[in-house]
Amino acid sequence: MADNRPIGVFDSGLGGLTVLKELEKVLPKESFVYFGDTGRVPYGSRSNETIISYARQDENFLLSKGVKYIVAACGTVSAVAADTAKDLPVPFMGVVENSVKAAVAATKNNRIGVIGTSATINNGAHKRKILELLPTATVTTADCPLFVPLVEEGFSAEDDIVVLEVARRYLAPMVEAGVDTLILGCTHYPILLGAIKKIMGQGVTLINMGNSTALAVKEELKALNMISEEESATKEFYVSDITAGFAKVSEILLGEKICDVNLVDINKYEGSSNRD
Amino acid sequence: MADNRPIGVFDSGLGGLTVLKELEKVLPKESFVYFGDTGRVPYGSRSNETIISYARQDENFLLSKGVKYIVAACGTVSAVAADTAKDLPVPFMGVVENSVKAAVAATKNNRIGVIGTSATINNGAHKRKILELLPTATVTTADCPLFVPLVEEGFSAEDDIVVLEVARRYLAPMVEAGVDTLILGCTHYPILLGAIKKIMGQGVTLINMGNSTALAVKEELKALNMISEEESATKEFYVSDITAGFAKVSEILLGEKICDVNLVDINKYEGSSNRD
Repeated sequence: MADNRPIGVFDSGLGGLTVLKELEKVLPKESFVYFGDTGRVPYGSRSNETIISYARQDENFLLSKGVKYIVAACGTVSAVAADTAKDLPVPFMGVVENSVKAAVAATKNNRIGVIGTSATINNGAHKRKILELLPTATVTTADCPLFVPLVEEGFSAEDDIVVLEVARRYLAPMVEAGVDTLILGCTHYPILLGAIKKIMGQGVTLINMGNSTALAVKEELKALNMISEEESATKEFYVSDITAGFAKVSEILLGEKICDVNLVDINKYEGSSNRD
Repeated sequence: MADNRPIGVFDSGLGGLTVLKELEKVLPKESFVYFGDTGRVPYGSRSNETIISYARQDENFLLSKGVKYIVAACGTVSAVAADTAKDLPVPFMGVVENSVKAAVAATKNNRIGVIGTSATINNGAHKRKILELLPTATVTTADCPLFVPLVEEGFSAEDDIVVLEVARRYLAPMVEAGVDTLILGCTHYPILLGAIKKIMGQGVTLINMGNSTALAVKEELKALNMISEEESATKEFYVSDITAGFAKVSEILLGEKICDVNLVDINKYEGSSNRD
C-alpha cells in the first residue's frame, strides 16, 4: 500500500535544503513540505531550552500540514532536541544518528572527527553516539562558526583563499589527530565539500548527514509500507521570515531556485495540540 | 540639577557594547542599563516589520528599568525602526544620524562610503541622511555580512590574512570610488578598525558610530540639564538568552569582562504600556 502524504522537513533556517536535496535524490516520488525557521535562525547559538521550544513549534507546524514523517534536517535540533519527538504521532528522524552509523561503518583506524556549530559540538551528541557504537573510537571535535556565514555569502569555491584558510584553521586538530572519517555535522557544510576535501586529503571519508539520513528514511518508509507512488510529487516551502538573502541562499543550498515560498507565524504553533 | 537615573542602551545583540564603551569614555559619571537581544540576534537579516516589533519590546524593557534616556546602539534599529521612538516618554538617540553628521563634517571631496549589515545598507538610511545634509555628495555603500561573525570568532587582527582578504573584497568599491570618509555603519566594525584602515589607507577618515553618538548624547543631556553627578556609577547587563559564546564575545566588544548578566523574557514587553 502506498502512502502519498508528504514528508515534513524542518531546519533552523535554510541549511536543511541540502538534506531535502539528498532526500529527493533517494526518494523521487515523495512530496515534501519544508519549513525553515528563518525568523529565528541560527539555533546554533541559542540555549538548549530555547532550541527545544522552537523545535516543538516547528514539528507542530509540519503536523498541521498532514505530513506522514518528520525529518529534523538540523544538526542542532537533532543533537539537542531529539526528545521533542517522543510524543509525535508520526515517525521522526534526526540527522545525527545516521551520520554516526555511516562514520562508524566507514572508519578503518577508529579515529573519527566531527565538525559542527558551537551548540552541536558543545552538546556532544555525535561523540556520545559514536562511543556507544564503537567504544574504542578516538573522537576529535571542532566547532566552525564561520562556515555557515561563508556559505551564505557565496564564499565556497574550493580554491577560495578565505575558505581554505578558515578551513585550515578549523580542521588543524582533525589533520593532527589523523582521523580517516569526518562527519560534516552541520547541513551547510556539504557546500564546502571541495575545500574541506583539499585540507583533509583524499584518504579521508567525509560523511554528508543529508545523504546518510535520506538512505535511512527510505529504509524505514519501506519497512513501514509508507513509500509514495505519486507520479507528480510536490514540494512546498514555508519560512518564518522572508529575508533579503532568501533567493540567493536557498539557491546555493538547494541547487535550484525556489519560486514559491510561504510565510508562517511560527509562534502560533505552541503547545502539543496536534500530538494525539 | 543632576539626573542620576541610568541611560538605557540596547542592541540586537552584543555589538552595542562598543557604543557603551564610547558612552562610558565620554560620560564617566553616568550609570547604564544595557540590553542585548541575544535570543533573537541578528536583526540585520530580519524583515522591517519584525525589526520594528523587536525594537518596541527592547525599549519597553529599558523603560521598565527607569532609564532617563534611550540609545539604540544598533545600526539596523536606528535605520529601520527610528519611528518606534516617537511615543517614548524619554529622549532617544540612534547611531545613524550622528555618524552621518560626523561624516559630512569630515569629508573634503564629498565622496562618502557606508558599510553595514545587509538590512542597514538595503534600508539606505545613511545614504538618504547624507544627501539631505550634503546634496552634492557621492555616496558608495556596501554590505559586509562576514564582518560580524569574523569579529565574534576573534578573527580581527589587522594582519590576519582572512580578515584582510575579506575586507579587501568588501571595500574594493570604496577604494575604487575614492571615498575620503567611511562610516562604519555596524557596531561590530570598530573592532576591525586596524584591518579596514590598512585596506582604505591612512588618508581616509573612519567614522565610529559609537563615538559620534556618545558625543551627541552628552550634548543633549547637558542641554536638558540631565547629566549625572553620581560618583559611583553602575552598569547593569541584560540579555534575552545566555549563550555559550557570551563571555568571549562580550569581552571582545566591551574590552572588559562582564561578571554579572541577567536573563530577560523579552516577549513579555509587548505593547506600549510604559509609554505615557
